Amino acid sequence: MGPTPFTGPRPFLGPTPFLDRVRTYAAEELTGVRDPFGSLGPLPTPAQRAFHAHGLANWWLPEKHGGRGMSLADSVDIVSELSYADAGAAFTLFISVLGSTMVSLYGSEELKDRTLGSTGPSGGFSATLGSEREAGSELTRIATRAARREGQFVLDGEKMFATNADFADFLVVVAVNADNPLEHLAVVVPRDTPGVRVDKRWKTLGLPSAGTYQVSFDNCRVPEANALHGPGLLLLEVGLNTSRTLIAATAIGIARRIRDLCLEYARTRRLRGESLLANPVFGSKLGHMEMQIEVMRHQCLAAATEFDALSALPEAPDELLARGALRSAVAAKMFCGQSGWQLASTASEMFGGLGYTTELPIGGLLQDMRYVSLVEGGDDVLRELLYRRYVIPSRRRL
Amino acid sequence: MGPTPFTGPRPFLGPTPFLDRVRTYAAEELTGVRDPFGSLGPLPTPAQRAFHAHGLANWWLPEKHGGRGMSLADSVDIVSELSYADAGAAFTLFISVLGSTMVSLYGSEELKDRTLGSTGPSGGFSATLGSEREAGSELTRIATRAARREGQFVLDGEKMFATNADFADFLVVVAVNADNPLEHLAVVVPRDTPGVRVDKRWKTLGLPSAGTYQVSFDNCRVPEANALHGPGLLLLEVGLNTSRTLIAATAIGIARRIRDLCLEYARTRRLRGESLLANPVFGSKLGHMEMQIEVMRHQCLAAATEFDALSALPEAPDELLARGALRSAVAAKMFCGQSGWQLASTASEMFGGLGYTTELPIGGLLQDMRYVSLVEGGDDVLRELLYRRYVIPSRRRL
Amino acid sequence: MGPTPFTGPRPFLGPTPFLDRVRTYAAEELTGVRDPFGSLGPLPTPAQRAFHAHGLANWWLPEKHGGRGMSLADSVDIVSELSYADAGAAFTLFISVLGSTMVSLYGSEELKDRTLGSTGPSGGFSATLGSEREAGSELTRIATRAARREGQFVLDGEKMFATNADFADFLVVVAVNADNPLEHLAVVVPRDTPGVRVDKRWKTLGLPSAGTYQVSFDNCRVPEANALHGPGLLLLEVGLNTSRTLIAATAIGIARRIRDLCLEYARTRRLRGESLLANPVFGSKLGHMEMQIEVMRHQCLAAATEFDALSALPEAPDELLARGALRSAVAAKMFCGQSGWQLASTASEMFGGLGYTTELPIGGLLQDMRYVSLVEGGDDVLRELLYRRYVIPSRRRL
Amino acid sequence: MGPTPFTGPRPFLGPTPFLDRVRTYAAEELTGVRDPFGSLGPLPTPAQRAFHAHGLANWWLPEKHGGRGMSLADSVDIVSELSYADAGAAFTLFISVLGSTMVSLYGSEELKDRTLGSTGPSGGFSATLGSEREAGSELTRIATRAARREGQFVLDGEKMFATNADFADFLVVVAVNADNPLEHLAVVVPRDTPGVRVDKRWKTLGLPSAGTYQVSFDNCRVPEANALHGPGLLLLEVGLNTSRTLIAATAIGIARRIRDLCLEYARTRRLRGESLLANPVFGSKLGHMEMQIEVMRHQCLAAATEFDALSALPEAPDELLARGALRSAVAAKMFCGQSGWQLASTASEMFGGLGYTTELPIGGLLQDMRYVSLVEGGDDVLRELLYRRYVIPSRRRL
Repeated sequence: MGPTPFTGPRPFLGPTPFLDRVRTYAAEELTGVRDPFGSLGPLPTPAQRAFHAHGLANWWLPEKHGGRGMSLADSVDIVSELSYADAGAAFTLFISVLGSTMVSLYGSEELKDRTLGSTGPSGGFSATLGSEREAGSELTRIATRAARREGQFVLDGEKMFATNADFADFLVVVAVNADNPLEHLAVVVPRDTPGVRVDKRWKTLGLPSAGTYQVSFDNCRVPEANALHGPGLLLLEVGLNTSRTLIAATAIGIARRIRDLCLEYARTRRLRGESLLANPVFGSKLGHMEMQIEVMRHQCLAAATEFDALSALPEAPDELLARGALRSAVAAKMFCGQSGWQLASTASEMFGGLGYTTELPIGGLLQDMRYVSLVEGGDDVLRELLYRRYVIPSRRRL
Repeated sequence: MGPTPFTGPRPFLGPTPFLDRVRTYAAEELTGVRDPFGSLGPLPTPAQRAFHAHGLANWWLPEKHGGRGMSLADSVDIVSELSYADAGAAFTLFISVLGSTMVSLYGSEELKDRTLGSTGPSGGFSATLGSEREAGSELTRIATRAARREGQFVLDGEKMFATNADFADFLVVVAVNADNPLEHLAVVVPRDTPGVRVDKRWKTLGLPSAGTYQVSFDNCRVPEANALHGPGLLLLEVGLNTSRTLIAATAIGIARRIRDLCLEYARTRRLRGESLLANPVFGSKLGHMEMQIEVMRHQCLAAATEFDALSALPEAPDELLARGALRSAVAAKMFCGQSGWQLASTASEMFGGLGYTTELPIGGLLQDMRYVSLVEGGDDVLRELLYRRYVIPSRRRL
Repeated sequence: MGPTPFTGPRPFLGPTPFLDRVRTYAAEELTGVRDPFGSLGPLPTPAQRAFHAHGLANWWLPEKHGGRGMSLADSVDIVSELSYADAGAAFTLFISVLGSTMVSLYGSEELKDRTLGSTGPSGGFSATLGSEREAGSELTRIATRAARREGQFVLDGEKMFATNADFADFLVVVAVNADNPLEHLAVVVPRDTPGVRVDKRWKTLGLPSAGTYQVSFDNCRVPEANALHGPGLLLLEVGLNTSRTLIAATAIGIARRIRDLCLEYARTRRLRGESLLANPVFGSKLGHMEMQIEVMRHQCLAAATEFDALSALPEAPDELLARGALRSAVAAKMFCGQSGWQLASTASEMFGGLGYTTELPIGGLLQDMRYVSLVEGGDDVLRELLYRRYVIPSRRRL
Repeated sequence: MGPTPFTGPRPFLGPTPFLDRVRTYAAEELTGVRDPFGSLGPLPTPAQRAFHAHGLANWWLPEKHGGRGMSLADSVDIVSELSYADAGAAFTLFISVLGSTMVSLYGSEELKDRTLGSTGPSGGFSATLGSEREAGSELTRIATRAARREGQFVLDGEKMFATNADFADFLVVVAVNADNPLEHLAVVVPRDTPGVRVDKRWKTLGLPSAGTYQVSFDNCRVPEANALHGPGLLLLEVGLNTSRTLIAATAIGIARRIRDLCLEYARTRRLRGESLLANPVFGSKLGHMEMQIEVMRHQCLAAATEFDALSALPEAPDELLARGALRSAVAAKMFCGQSGWQLASTASEMFGGLGYTTELPIGGLLQDMRYVSLVEGGDDVLRELLYRRYVIPSRRRL
């Protein structure tokens, strides 16, 4: 076919050399390391720590904070590559984007330097703490309180799901203002602050190399300057545009891995005297998967591109606050979660009884895929959000 | 509503007292014992052994062989109850029906007395061995050989998936006739026959309380009288009508358990100031599940009733051989596998992030449900079977 | 295969000779007569009138009322055969079952003789009028009033959808009691009663040989004895068990016709040098359809069998009132509507561009299929009904 | 929310004023004109002719050929707007893009001036003729022959589906080379060439304002210079990237219209004392639709953007030939056809029985939507295409 001046299906990714390094890292450090159904070891794993050694950590941070200044659109393919190898490792490596985006957009310069400026260069992590057991999906009902006392914020409460919290450098905590229950705050809490306690690590269905923790705060004091500027719940919504997009992007990587697994398997199997690769029913399923992967990727890229464009505006923080949850990011997570689950379900039926054993990784990949629809807003919550924000107001409809 | 002379939705189940005993057993011995994601212990578990102590074991065998003489239609609800508590336990307890049906229909009286007459009263198990690694779903390609030598059959080969094989009293092995590669035999092999080796227990995605093994035969000799009468592959097909129907029935039990789990969860959750039970979206999903459970059950009952009716004919063995795989049984497994998976997938999205943890049993139930579509013929195989047997010949179409 | 003493997949249908007559009638009078997208002619069509000439009309009525005393279970396959030929004709021919069931169960002997005793022998029709424009699916909000005045009921109001109403002998009208807005009545109104006006025939997407009308009542007087015994809305619910089951059964017939159409088409097409019949993707789809048809039929039979069993009880009217909408009948309509639509959608994609033309009947069959989910309660309404009646009360759950 | 410097979800569409004119045109000329299930009148309709009067016709042609030089990415939203009003009108107005793209890329300058240079300024149409009855989806089997005779091509044969052919200025005909049955040609045939005969207009399920014709060629002679440069089947494949993308885009418009129809309907309905708009089940469905519309649109935009980028390359014709059918365009049509059908099916169930009548336009919209999956390659064909082209060659996989 000769030289290809136009890269076609990957028009968004500028720094291809970077992506190549990600692929090399993933192939060397992650692939095959995963122990399906194995014990959950300490996090981050050595393989995840090696990410920093490869000069890849926190790639989305600006260079002055130790990152590579890469866009969210770039991140889609990076996360897809990482997830192809290990979705749990990928989740661990990118989820800091949520907190760091909130700090970048709504923190003071001093706070940024103090947090991102330290975490970034060291290849460290952050965690963002929103959900609580009682509140469920209604974040307006969260009970963790932040009280302004003598130039400090004092935090008390319990947060249910906090990925990376145990080994993060800092936590971004969404709390109700103890002095005004209608106001919420987002406060940066260094992990080593007295009163921060990691209560347990959740046992999860998949993603063995990611860690999600329950965390509590007991009379935990941080400087007032650690509060971000703006209404806490809305700041969280803005940040979720990044993490939801990249969670969606993990579905692409898992799906690509599953597709290749089907092909590898088919290469070794014969059906009625022919390679399974030549079977039309098999081909039809794989063709369908390719379509699904294509559509998933473009929705993630669209969401990322929209966020990147808004972030590049001079008034980005305000503009993003005015929009909150972007339709594109919400749709990306919903769609990739559903489409990915359908793809993984179909695939898990293609290996016969072997697909029910741990001899093949399909079972673990199926369980990994499940997380896309379950974290950071289930589909019922997101459908209602789209309805309220983008359907009811006629001017916001597509 | 007053006294109910007609039981309505359960018209098929005669011995309700028996079903009550099953429920009591399940509640006392199985529920809650299950350890999701736990280690796989020795089988059968004490809870499964207790089944015999409750006088319930091998309920489908005739009384003279220590069973209760119950029909396959009765068995549908029995298996549903067992699976409600633990689908792996249920699978262990009913899967002997496959081998014992083959022996009952196609074994000599002497063989029946020697096998069923011993296993039945002791509450023992049997296993049926068809699939092989190379052959995949094409059983005509199996390579395990049975050679007729001096009044004996000598078996050599390896069988991939054999549930219960480790602790079964006898194995029903489908093999190619060493003297005629176009003929297949089904041969009863006592578990303790020299040369029978259990190579390993498969690690599976779900059903921790069931055991599926890889088994090999090395110069393994049994009396000629241990061969069943008739072509081995077709005898297996006949027997699969029972096990496919009951595998399908496990989906009913798992689905009912999932439905109740959703209701229990909803009872404790509030959404916008109301119980989640009052939420129309929740109600809509639960109403849909009830419809699915209803349809699953009726298809299983229809398949079981057809098999029971055919089995009651004077010429049952020939009649069943002439039919082979029944459309009703094949459809039951396909449909319940799909509908059950859809139900379990939907449910797993109803618990928010908690649904991705092991705090709730939904993850384990989802993995249990998966087996229905994967064992004893994947959907691609079954669709092709239906096409070839029931669509192409116009007189067999519905 | 030799003589088949057991009919297997059709265990419920006793009078096979009757079904043969139905098939003969359908082949002679209905098949091919249908004019897809054609003009809607006067109803009932000559072909539909011929049903009576063949001695088949109102087959479910007792012999003393001119019927054949056949069960609802028998009716499932009868309706399937009729719908195979023309679902609109089938709908016209069976929908009287709704009103006649209500009259049979809850009318006085005198009323039965006066209505069924006259309509039955003449091969006539009845119509049942529940829905109103404003009330939508909430029948408690219907506004048609029945006022008890001087030994008569005076009816006023407008009914939205009334199939067969134009040419029916009598109408069963559900109305609110003018003297007690919390009470509803079901009143039999002869079609020729002064004040009954057929306002229009609805133009519908499919079923060109069925007629659904808007009907109004203006000071329309009938004897007090024309009221059925019992609460009107609940009597309607009881009756709907029959019509919902048979509407579901039309999906079986349409689906069988579609399947055969796919096979006829495939017989004439070649793909890569082979008959399309030999293509695995085609076979896979047809095998799937056969499974769907099988499951649809068994759910309809289960619903019909439950209704038949309840109807055979000495206290049938009370027993049925105590149960109202049966889970089995509701599930049959929901399931067959959905599964049939999926089957028809898949099929419509199998003919290439030709499937978008009227050269093939698939377009008309797709439109016919759509009615199953849309009439007598949409799925949202039915899901909520199942939730409220069969999920919330734990003792009614499966 | 104040002024919005960034248009967010529509980043691709430059000339918003143009889109506004399209909307105005659609609102004035198309909306409401459509007569569902009405008679099929002469084409193009006056409303379609008015498109030219509004200065909008053939917008994708370069200005020197009377167009507006707009990109395929621009066209996605234009077609969405047109289809919102009337998908059949939209199809008529854009489908010339297929033939004109083939001519633009692979015709001589002289041929372009002679065809596009005349059709463009007059607001005329072209048609592209590939499919044949016998060949079905296997275009290698087409039988229409083009014989090179004395400086001319002589065409003989019959083409099955040719949209716009009756009133087009010129036809692009794909034929087998009479002198080399392994070679195919794409030849431009002026509509008024002697020997061109429109045999009939197909009656179609939907799109009443579009016309698809069967056309035959009998000793039909055109100058040799009318042949495009390159292998005919591959040139067609290249062109189909444009039309498949825009057919997919009609699904967006139809879907948006359906969504708005649901909202209009809900505004007038009450359920349990509240507006249907406040019902959570309704909201959930509409939120889901919004997600689907979003994803459909981004896949269309991605496909269009890829084609635009390739077209902008200096070696565009060769580059496009080397790629043939683009994954993005194939995926767009498959995905939008499926997702749109699912959306339309769900919607058609939201109006109760009214949804089965012609009082609401939903039935017609459902039928319109169906065409997306059926024309220019059914899903089975496209899945196999993706498998062969983009899955089997590992370097082309995503």
